[in-house]
Amino acid sequence: MSVDQLRLWARLESLSRLTDPDRPWTRRSFTSRFLEGRAWLAAEFRAAGLETAIDAGGNLIGRIEGTEQGLKPILIGSHSDTVPSGGRYDGILGVLAALEVAQSLIESGTRLRHPLEVVDFLAEEPSEFEGLSCIGSRAMSGALTPQHLALRRADGMSLEEGIAYVGGRPAEIALSARRPGSIAAYLEVHIEQGRVLENEAKPVGIVTDIVGIRRERITVTGRADHAGATPMPLRSDALVGAARLIEAAYGRALATSGDEQPLVATFGKIEVSPNAANAVPGEVVMTLEVRSGNEAAVSTFGTALVRDVQPELAALRLAVTAEPISNVAPVACAPAVRTAIADAAKANDLGTRDLPSGAGHDGVFVSRLGPIGMIFVPCLDGRSHAPEEAIEPGQAADGARALAGAVSLLDERLD
Amino acid sequence: MSVDQLRLWARLESLSRLTDPDRPWTRRSFTSRFLEGRAWLAAEFRAAGLETAIDAGGNLIGRIEGTEQGLKPILIGSHSDTVPSGGRYDGILGVLAALEVAQSLIESGTRLRHPLEVVDFLAEEPSEFEGLSCIGSRAMSGALTPQHLALRRADGMSLEEGIAYVGGRPAEIALSARRPGSIAAYLEVHIEQGRVLENEAKPVGIVTDIVGIRRERITVTGRADHAGATPMPLRSDALVGAARLIEAAYGRALATSGDEQPLVATFGKIEVSPNAANAVPGEVVMTLEVRSGNEAAVSTFGTALVRDVQPELAALRLAVTAEPISNVAPVACAPAVRTAIADAAKANDLGTRDLPSGAGHDGVFVSRLGPIGMIFVPCLDGRSHAPEEAIEPGQAADGARALAGAVSLLDERLD
Repeated sequence: MSVDQLRLWARLESLSRLTDPDRPWTRRSFTSRFLEGRAWLAAEFRAAGLETAIDAGGNLIGRIEGTEQGLKPILIGSHSDTVPSGGRYDGILGVLAALEVAQSLIESGTRLRHPLEVVDFLAEEPSEFEGLSCIGSRAMSGALTPQHLALRRADGMSLEEGIAYVGGRPAEIALSARRPGSIAAYLEVHIEQGRVLENEAKPVGIVTDIVGIRRERITVTGRADHAGATPMPLRSDALVGAARLIEAAYGRALATSGDEQPLVATFGKIEVSPNAANAVPGEVVMTLEVRSGNEAAVSTFGTALVRDVQPELAALRLAVTAEPISNVAPVACAPAVRTAIADAAKANDLGTRDLPSGAGHDGVFVSRLGPIGMIFVPCLDGRSHAPEEAIEPGQAADGARALAGAVSLLDERLD
Repeated sequence: MSVDQLRLWARLESLSRLTDPDRPWTRRSFTSRFLEGRAWLAAEFRAAGLETAIDAGGNLIGRIEGTEQGLKPILIGSHSDTVPSGGRYDGILGVLAALEVAQSLIESGTRLRHPLEVVDFLAEEPSEFEGLSCIGSRAMSGALTPQHLALRRADGMSLEEGIAYVGGRPAEIALSARRPGSIAAYLEVHIEQGRVLENEAKPVGIVTDIVGIRRERITVTGRADHAGATPMPLRSDALVGAARLIEAAYGRALATSGDEQPLVATFGKIEVSPNAANAVPGEVVMTLEVRSGNEAAVSTFGTALVRDVQPELAALRLAVTAEPISNVAPVACAPAVRTAIADAAKANDLGTRDLPSGAGHDGVFVSRLGPIGMIFVPCLDGRSHAPEEAIEPGQAADGARALAGAVSLLDERLD
């Protein structure tokens, strides 16, 4: 099965250009621009020979039946919505690579044993409904709750109404959700959104895990004092304590770089009060975000950091507390799927690199239904969720080739 | 000469109660509340027997002539304006202690050789005129410029109009400014606004210097990246670099604690971008404020800090720059005045402690006219510029006693 690089690239160009003209490359979920993209996609799906429909949760699905009765479907795809001002390839590469694989199969006369479904999941990116993401994959996997459906965006529209607006049937979501074990596998091609593959000149990344993400609010409390009238030994400078935590977190996370499941720790958000040039900082509130495929490492990092640095902070006359904000468990990619991707890449002479996905994806929810895997391709300078996001036609095609090969192998290997 | 503690305290209570009722203890310069305080003060000055007038720059001055012709005046005083919501004793203690000293002299029949002037300087605190402070002492010492007089506050009033509003004569300021060498000495009693005297149970602080204050804008530049998709070794986290600078500045300043002229260094203000939980910080802009009586130490601290930490930041793939924002040179208190305060305190059995003034005061400008000195008294828990600012009647009286003794000694010792 060969992949048509020119056709894939032409489709990437066509769909990405369906953008809000004043802020490329934007196609936000639940907008008329999104429906424009969906209409174009549905027409392409049908022209390629896919049986195309929108499911209850608002996912656009194109299907080819398999040759053997009773086998579960193999799902391939991604999403066609974007964040504001970013996402030229984030999402649509996975949908269009999947379409290319399906069309190549049809055109080559190859029939798979399993049904094959090309899925454009609804609203993978944080939506206007209080930032809820992965709406379509949540719906498909039974994880979209009535509370979610009641969320309203600023103009008053509810998510329930939003799903109907894009052609879903919200009333049927609960009953039509797929059951655990109901899919043979799910594979997604996606840009890496980082620089690992580019730095190592590897065309294919085999995702090991979609990392768990834990956020904690770390508060360092000292005492706000007049910066002129308070000698150094009498200070309780909360920012000095915060600096110690920032350095310790960086050092500890950096030390896991060689691990099989490395961890990243980020103090990305920090608020200092009173935040005046002539005031000793009295309080610092920071968000610690920890991500890793290693669930135990994610859940203990913040607690251990605070516990170990606390004596140093006490010596600086500072108190420190940590409260959890959110916690999402990591999801491991299935060994069978990872192996199929590796074998397919090898057969195509594509070098590979195992790496975690540091960002969340629909696979987190689809993993409830069956084994998942992800294929990463390099993107220019790791830029993503920004207008500069860029890939080369050959990089897109490499991802599609690895996907095509992995689908063929899984179709042979799985029941 | 004895000081009347009850009278001094009663006056502190009376004047501090002339406050905006909804935000004690507030008497902002250039307001009707300020004029109310000034009217009360002028009446007290006159009742005590002082020849009382407002000078061109809007300073309220009560004068007693000396016994010897041709001697320069000794000035004592402080200011009666406050910051918003703070300043129950900050300022008025110095004015009312000076009034108490003058009145005690008159009542005891003691005549000084030198003229004595009790001064309530106009607008020592940052004013509504773009934050300009020490307006009266600038005017008296020839440091108030036409540009200053043209400053306007939000309601459109110019400083020139403001000075006229409080009874000054702005057109005469330039010509009536006093000349360098025109005063015998200036002494001011003030609350410490810190905790050094309280911690060491010393009733009198002898100010060694009014510190120099240098502010620099320190910018650490890294690269904003996705916190999930960027492994630790590929990051250029500006906040990690900022943390290193914060810790280094703290350690270096702390190491000067035992010096004769210690230095304080504060990173009080910090802005991180993009400042999002899931973004590696790309840039941090901080204000470094350095204060010390040691002018060379103040001027070189930031440059040396950045130079020495720069290699560590480069290893973290970070750039760092420093730009000066402002620089005020330190002012040394005159040895003769410091000695007089020390001798007076000893004669009154008051323990003393040499210490710098970390905050600015009118003495910075008055020092252009002659030798200056400052007497600090402890304040509760170092709180100042806040509603909680508090002193005891005995602490106020100790300051007045040290002032009275120092004025007598200087009157004997100076020509």
